Amino acid sequence: MKNIFGVPGDFNLVLLDKIDDVPGMKWVGSVNELNAGYSADGYSRVKNGFTSDGSSIGCVVTTFGVGELSAINAIAGAYSEHVGLLHVVGVPSTDSQKKELLLHHTLGNGDFTVFGKISSFISATTSALSDPATATAEIDRVIESAFINQRPTYLAFPSNFFNLKVPKSELDKPLKLTPPPNNVEVQDEVVSEILSMIGKAKRPVIIVDACCGRHNATYEANKFIQLTNFNFACTPMSKGSRDIDENDPRYIGVYLGDLSYPRSKELVESADLVLSFGAVLSDFNTGSFSYSLPNSKVVEFHSDYTKIRNAQYPKIRMKELIGKLVASPELKKLTADYKPFQTSLDLIQPVKLPQEHKITQAWLWSNLGSWLKEGDVIVTETGTSNFGIIQTKFPKNVIGISQVLWGSIGYSVGSAAGAVIAAEEVDPTRRVILFVGDGSLQLTVQEISTMVRNKNKIYIFVLNNSGFTIERLIHGREAGYNAIQEWAYTDLLKTFKATEFETFTVGKIGEIEKLFKDDAFAVNDKIRLVEIKLDTFDAPENLVKQAEASSKVNDG
Amino acid sequence: MKNIFGVPGDFNLVLLDKIDDVPGMKWVGSVNELNAGYSADGYSRVKNGFTSDGSSIGCVVTTFGVGELSAINAIAGAYSEHVGLLHVVGVPSTDSQKKELLLHHTLGNGDFTVFGKISSFISATTSALSDPATATAEIDRVIESAFINQRPTYLAFPSNFFNLKVPKSELDKPLKLTPPPNNVEVQDEVVSEILSMIGKAKRPVIIVDACCGRHNATYEANKFIQLTNFNFACTPMSKGSRDIDENDPRYIGVYLGDLSYPRSKELVESADLVLSFGAVLSDFNTGSFSYSLPNSKVVEFHSDYTKIRNAQYPKIRMKELIGKLVASPELKKLTADYKPFQTSLDLIQPVKLPQEHKITQAWLWSNLGSWLKEGDVIVTETGTSNFGIIQTKFPKNVIGISQVLWGSIGYSVGSAAGAVIAAEEVDPTRRVILFVGDGSLQLTVQEISTMVRNKNKIYIFVLNNSGFTIERLIHGREAGYNAIQEWAYTDLLKTFKATEFETFTVGKIGEIEKLFKDDAFAVNDKIRLVEIKLDTFDAPENLVKQAEASSKVNDG
Repeated sequence: MKNIFGVPGDFNLVLLDKIDDVPGMKWVGSVNELNAGYSADGYSRVKNGFTSDGSSIGCVVTTFGVGELSAINAIAGAYSEHVGLLHVVGVPSTDSQKKELLLHHTLGNGDFTVFGKISSFISATTSALSDPATATAEIDRVIESAFINQRPTYLAFPSNFFNLKVPKSELDKPLKLTPPPNNVEVQDEVVSEILSMIGKAKRPVIIVDACCGRHNATYEANKFIQLTNFNFACTPMSKGSRDIDENDPRYIGVYLGDLSYPRSKELVESADLVLSFGAVLSDFNTGSFSYSLPNSKVVEFHSDYTKIRNAQYPKIRMKELIGKLVASPELKKLTADYKPFQTSLDLIQPVKLPQEHKITQAWLWSNLGSWLKEGDVIVTETGTSNFGIIQTKFPKNVIGISQVLWGSIGYSVGSAAGAVIAAEEVDPTRRVILFVGDGSLQLTVQEISTMVRNKNKIYIFVLNNSGFTIERLIHGREAGYNAIQEWAYTDLLKTFKATEFETFTVGKIGEIEKLFKDDAFAVNDKIRLVEIKLDTFDAPENLVKQAEASSKVNDG
Repeated sequence: MKNIFGVPGDFNLVLLDKIDDVPGMKWVGSVNELNAGYSADGYSRVKNGFTSDGSSIGCVVTTFGVGELSAINAIAGAYSEHVGLLHVVGVPSTDSQKKELLLHHTLGNGDFTVFGKISSFISATTSALSDPATATAEIDRVIESAFINQRPTYLAFPSNFFNLKVPKSELDKPLKLTPPPNNVEVQDEVVSEILSMIGKAKRPVIIVDACCGRHNATYEANKFIQLTNFNFACTPMSKGSRDIDENDPRYIGVYLGDLSYPRSKELVESADLVLSFGAVLSDFNTGSFSYSLPNSKVVEFHSDYTKIRNAQYPKIRMKELIGKLVASPELKKLTADYKPFQTSLDLIQPVKLPQEHKITQAWLWSNLGSWLKEGDVIVTETGTSNFGIIQTKFPKNVIGISQVLWGSIGYSVGSAAGAVIAAEEVDPTRRVILFVGDGSLQLTVQEISTMVRNKNKIYIFVLNNSGFTIERLIHGREAGYNAIQEWAYTDLLKTFKATEFETFTVGKIGEIEKLFKDDAFAVNDKIRLVEIKLDTFDAPENLVKQAEASSKVNDG
């Protein structure tokens, strides 16, 4: 990692000095800790999406109590969605802790362990450094866990340890950043079982889901697809995963049960073998559990186990397992003559509307693909855009970022602030494009200030539909609680004192088409904010159906 | 309570309908959950500060997982600082929970109990409703605990319970909102012991601290002062407590150890008996533990115990105990001829500076008192203003709000948004005045939008000193991490589409004096934002000393 996110606080200040001391490492001062956590999450996802030689993580630094608790929703989101993250908290000195001093940022009860306990519920592992002799080993352990588990880990770093001297030998120890190898005997059994199922299958299909990308197995997944010629689908959570190309002729769309395009649903559900890579079977990722895939024909590849029909194989991890399958001469033989039963499925038909027509969600998402470019990073928000983006065709190598499982509104703004920093680290020509509704934007708006401060060249599309449209569709269509204060969104960049920027308001098809056809607009050379005026109740069709389903589940 | 704060989410929407159904109850849609929590905290403090006939609480409603975790720093702050708060979380239906559905807003592991567990660390009590038969009793228990303990309590309310029918008799049961009576025998012993100490004392002094106000005992405390004629001090955390009047001739200033005005320190520390009402002995409330008050001469009155010298009396609560002392004929007799050893101490000397001079912190705080009016509510931020306000003389009945123990930056903006709603509920002529630094404002700026939306008539003074001055003083004086993006603060109200508003920028003494002398400006008839330009390293003297002390503690 190179850029570290966070907010200064008196228990971490001396640690922040150290960041500047490390060549190539940079401190990104976020505006608040929740946003810093979201940014580290977005950063981690993009870094994972760019690099094929191992997983990456993000890092967020906060201060004891107040700072760390402000970040906790973001950390829980990273836990829920399998995003590798290191949360470093500057805490009071070991001496203050021993004396149980009634310091500020405490609950006033002398208990210095309570915040670490809270974080333990949403972290792969936690550590509160207390002994100089074990400090470096503990730090290594916590970092390694974040990489290996692709989950947040938590490190409480006492303020008197920031200048601790440790033996050089401890610092020279290499970190173990990859999971341990699978058990050979068990894996052989699994491989043989899967090959036997493949041998018998007539209509096999692959579903590449979120954890495949998160756990760095898309390289192997793509090799598997190329080798076998099997058709493959993705899911809302995996759309825009590295190596998984929607333009591949074998691609059959986004599968989410009854909310899929009918042809995608038909193709997936008529398969006699489903190889599921990194499934996350949450409501919004499965069309409210409307999957119709009996266990008897499913093999699930996970980051920490494999499941064949109903048999579970703990610690048989997908990255190594898929690699093993790809390397197997038997698989090559079995699939040598296999032809996909569907090629070049053309699912997304761009909606046509006259120039003077209002912009609609259906038009926007189905036409957006033509403006996107290879390598773009698309960040969408829990709201209309998370659902709408399913109807957008992604060019090659597009990275999609969304929070479909955790679904915290406001996430996308902080996440985009981290994503754009990661993208600019690796390749500044890659565009980062944020779609966020007006309601969600308001929760985390100040992180646009961080983008301005860092002179990030990002596109911010504000979908202004006057409130929480996703909530209105679930319940309270006209209720006051789903309304928000209207802001002058196009004044935001000026208010945050951006110097080089552009803002636009578009409401008609002709206006947005003009932007999409403008060559200058297409080049990410400045920060741009585009307010898109939309009807309050205009929403992607799949969201309307999901909202109906959610409302029923809530009524119990 | 009348106004309820929070953010809608799909698991609480149906509950929000009910709020509108209750006459006199109103939903305040906050912009995000952290701010909603801060607002409920500020609201609770002001309501407690206005009413003398029992404690009040605030209420915040969030949604499962994402929403509740975003609020948690605010809830922890209320816990730390003894603020009564009810946190209601709309959670998935009991049916969804039983089936362990992989819903959005979960950690993806089917565990629906984890967020309640997290909240249990920072709540007086928690309850997850699951059984219709016990639901009303549980709700009563959780509400009563928030009132009695003046701490946050947590109620997980399943979405299928919002329309639950319950017997009317259960709803008719009165709530028990006051603590149980003290044990008579123990209290008699304590009273007799205290009277004996008072009988022997020559120079007794009272320190009224934060918990005295939080636990609704200032009425009794003031009676005690009036009856005995004893001198009394307050503390940073209790400055601006109901019934405690700085203009009382017996008042001897803010006591915070070595960081007190020398004369206040001398008067308090030369006492031979210290009656401490509701002490919170945290670092920033005691001048970094520089109290010089040996236990041998101290009686501590607390919300849940009393301590005489080193003897503790559990469950002897201060409100009843002080009341008992006041009613004691013995006390009247003992103090009948007592004369205070200091009267009308004039501590705060307004700094004089020429009109063309830059505004300084020393000038601002020492002169502010002349602009303040009886009954104002003053909200200050963890930063220069929390320290500066100690140097301001408050008129009668001023309510001071700050977060000296928890010290979460950004708190004051959300808190002020709640405070102004509480003030307008009770008496719209009482002014609410916020002082917040530029760095802190940025964390929670969007809550100004809620003030705009509610047409709250509030004063927002933005102390623009280009970054985190309080942190700069502790460590990293010129460090990049203590800098922030400069905003056009005076554009904020326009960006949030305020209609009736005023904004000002002042940098010179003459400019701010002109405002303070303007009769129209003094009337709270619209929202006003005043940017005060200050030097980056200009800070109240007591903050400079506190920062030095904190830096030493951090180095361990």
